[in-house]
Amino acid sequence: MAEYATTVTQDTIGAVQLEIGNNQNELYFRKPFDPASYDLELTFRLTKFADLKGRGCKVPQEILSKLLLTLQHNEENGQQEEEHTNFMQLLPQPRLGIGMDSSVTPLRHNGLSLVQTTDCIYPIVDEPYMMGKIACANVLSDLYALGVTECDNMLMILGVSIKMTEKERDAVIPLIMKGFKDCATEAGTYVTGGHTVVNPWCTLGGVATSICQINEYIECNNAVVGDVIVLTKPLGTQVAVNAHQWLEQPERWNRIKLIVSEEDVNKAYNRAMDSMARLNRTAARLMHKYNAHGATDVTGFGLLGHAQALAKNQKKEVSFVIHNLPIIAKMAGVAKACGNMFQLLQGSSPETSGGLLICLPREQAAAYCKDIEKQEGYQAWIIGIVEKGNRSARIIDKPRVIEVPAKEKDGSLW
Amino acid sequence: MAEYATTVTQDTIGAVQLEIGNNQNELYFRKPFDPASYDLELTFRLTKFADLKGRGCKVPQEILSKLLLTLQHNEENGQQEEEHTNFMQLLPQPRLGIGMDSSVTPLRHNGLSLVQTTDCIYPIVDEPYMMGKIACANVLSDLYALGVTECDNMLMILGVSIKMTEKERDAVIPLIMKGFKDCATEAGTYVTGGHTVVNPWCTLGGVATSICQINEYIECNNAVVGDVIVLTKPLGTQVAVNAHQWLEQPERWNRIKLIVSEEDVNKAYNRAMDSMARLNRTAARLMHKYNAHGATDVTGFGLLGHAQALAKNQKKEVSFVIHNLPIIAKMAGVAKACGNMFQLLQGSSPETSGGLLICLPREQAAAYCKDIEKQEGYQAWIIGIVEKGNRSARIIDKPRVIEVPAKEKDGSLW
Repeated sequence: MAEYATTVTQDTIGAVQLEIGNNQNELYFRKPFDPASYDLELTFRLTKFADLKGRGCKVPQEILSKLLLTLQHNEENGQQEEEHTNFMQLLPQPRLGIGMDSSVTPLRHNGLSLVQTTDCIYPIVDEPYMMGKIACANVLSDLYALGVTECDNMLMILGVSIKMTEKERDAVIPLIMKGFKDCATEAGTYVTGGHTVVNPWCTLGGVATSICQINEYIECNNAVVGDVIVLTKPLGTQVAVNAHQWLEQPERWNRIKLIVSEEDVNKAYNRAMDSMARLNRTAARLMHKYNAHGATDVTGFGLLGHAQALAKNQKKEVSFVIHNLPIIAKMAGVAKACGNMFQLLQGSSPETSGGLLICLPREQAAAYCKDIEKQEGYQAWIIGIVEKGNRSARIIDKPRVIEVPAKEKDGSLW
Repeated sequence: MAEYATTVTQDTIGAVQLEIGNNQNELYFRKPFDPASYDLELTFRLTKFADLKGRGCKVPQEILSKLLLTLQHNEENGQQEEEHTNFMQLLPQPRLGIGMDSSVTPLRHNGLSLVQTTDCIYPIVDEPYMMGKIACANVLSDLYALGVTECDNMLMILGVSIKMTEKERDAVIPLIMKGFKDCATEAGTYVTGGHTVVNPWCTLGGVATSICQINEYIECNNAVVGDVIVLTKPLGTQVAVNAHQWLEQPERWNRIKLIVSEEDVNKAYNRAMDSMARLNRTAARLMHKYNAHGATDVTGFGLLGHAQALAKNQKKEVSFVIHNLPIIAKMAGVAKACGNMFQLLQGSSPETSGGLLICLPREQAAAYCKDIEKQEGYQAWIIGIVEKGNRSARIIDKPRVIEVPAKEKDGSLW
């Protein structure tokens, strides 16, 4: 049985009600989380409830590929497989699966496909409400990468850390859930269920599902020579959240304090948080308007890892060459100062809830970027080109770093 | 991006291919897992890769209810909520959600509903292949509890323990995946994607989704006075897997060795494993044939916990009274010898991938049980009755314990 129970006791979540009652303004939740206002230890930090983040928490790409062979469908069970193949031939839609952002399954019901994805991350920011939003945006991003803009349902998957005290749990988990739910509402969908377990680390994830017509999603494998590559969010989220944690770790901070000021780091952290919580939905919608030839979203394997995975999936013999790296302001400098730690300029620094990486016809790309900025107030960048090649991706030797400043919002800097 | 990658290297999973090549017989995988044959330490035990199991890994029911208030839809956002309500009124199907085994969402597409669920457990048996099957059966069970028999798609969610060596990981994870996949095949569905992370504990879960017509699922809230309650699998899985681990822990074993023999425990363990890996699909199919009035599946909150949740959801003023407890042979004795540890006879011992608990018209129940035994070779039991009441459930003072023996299979005892 899924454990979500409906019982409503009057001993409700005081904290959340307070928030809702006193402040409809999201800015309230974006303020640095103040443990004292929830009667928690001043040293409480959500990010302490997991030892790994970003790529650290992923099974390395090449090992995963090997392990996942087990799930390939064509290795055994001749008869069953054959039946399946025959069934598939009757259907007009392609069946996409392992290796894609989302799985696409043709349904028994005429012309419809099931598009779905699941994802899960560990805490990377200390604001529980924003962390909930980020977890939700991160799950939805896999649908948006396929150009799907309507999510029909979400489930939430939550691991509550065994190291949280009851007080911490009761203060923080409702805020995370509220962030997750608010983000789902923003995306025009609902959280109807899910699963909660106790786990050593705090985990935040979910499932996003869309049942759609074939014209509602965009296959990711139609890039052609001459296309250009667009990225819709800046890189450097992982560097920013780490630098922010180092403000409280003198020996780490000493390593970068000549490169950045505390204010720089706070701005970068807020920009990262803002960016990670932002939906890729408009980016997905505009993929249809500007005839995108395929896309993926940039997350745990970094820009280059995901560009390579996308290149490998192409039907035509193409390769991706990346010339520009839009990076949250000052974070390229921080990454350089840390030696090989982040691999940001090499394209391997993990991102959380990153932007869409989209192959667009050359003549449409500038209009795409202009349109997204007009609708959302956020820049997108042409970062590379599609050449003839062997389905790989690379970053040129000395890529141009585009410094992406913190955004002005409501008079305060984010 | 969902991390499943398609790349196939020739350096494939030797172990799995070996199994497939040499032995199509599932019995091979059911043998006690032999670490030596995978070149692992003799002391390797899958169950050591999590400290909690069963109810231990759940957030307690009452706390969860409180936390989940955040996800209720009617607390705020008046306008958006109203729009949603209006949308719902246009649809002929009910929308079920939090608190149910699966969430049911009416779709934009004519007459169809999305039924889906997610679940996740920690290792409870030492056979990786069987553990994969159990994890899959456990996820699917939430669909079957609603009488849904066709799963359209599955995703697998895997947490690989940070404590596993590379060698252990490469031996064990493919076996778990194979078990998961084989169980999905048995259920007539496919695993098309998922998510893998690194986590302190090994976690095993997934998502099951069905898009179906309204007549394909059975609402769980139509029990009436005079119905009887049927259970389709024996209780005691948690006791059996614990007793089995105690064979290697002398101080624990001493506590129960006067009650059971090593052979009893091995038989109970195998019966439990067999039972947990068995699909509730036939049970779900027969719910339609015999006009079930509602069902749930028995998992982490134990028989009584789930009976209470089902009772609370009823439309009519009814209560459930349970008279009989079918329990894996000897496990009632073990539970008694352990004092309050398991709460098996009180109905609170957690089960994993337990049976369906079904409300059936009195005149149909015996035929239902007979039919399931005829089709599957497994017994089902009438365990209680539906009375007039306040939507609660209880077990009578001295319930009758039905000792359920290990099954004879292929000449060997399970």
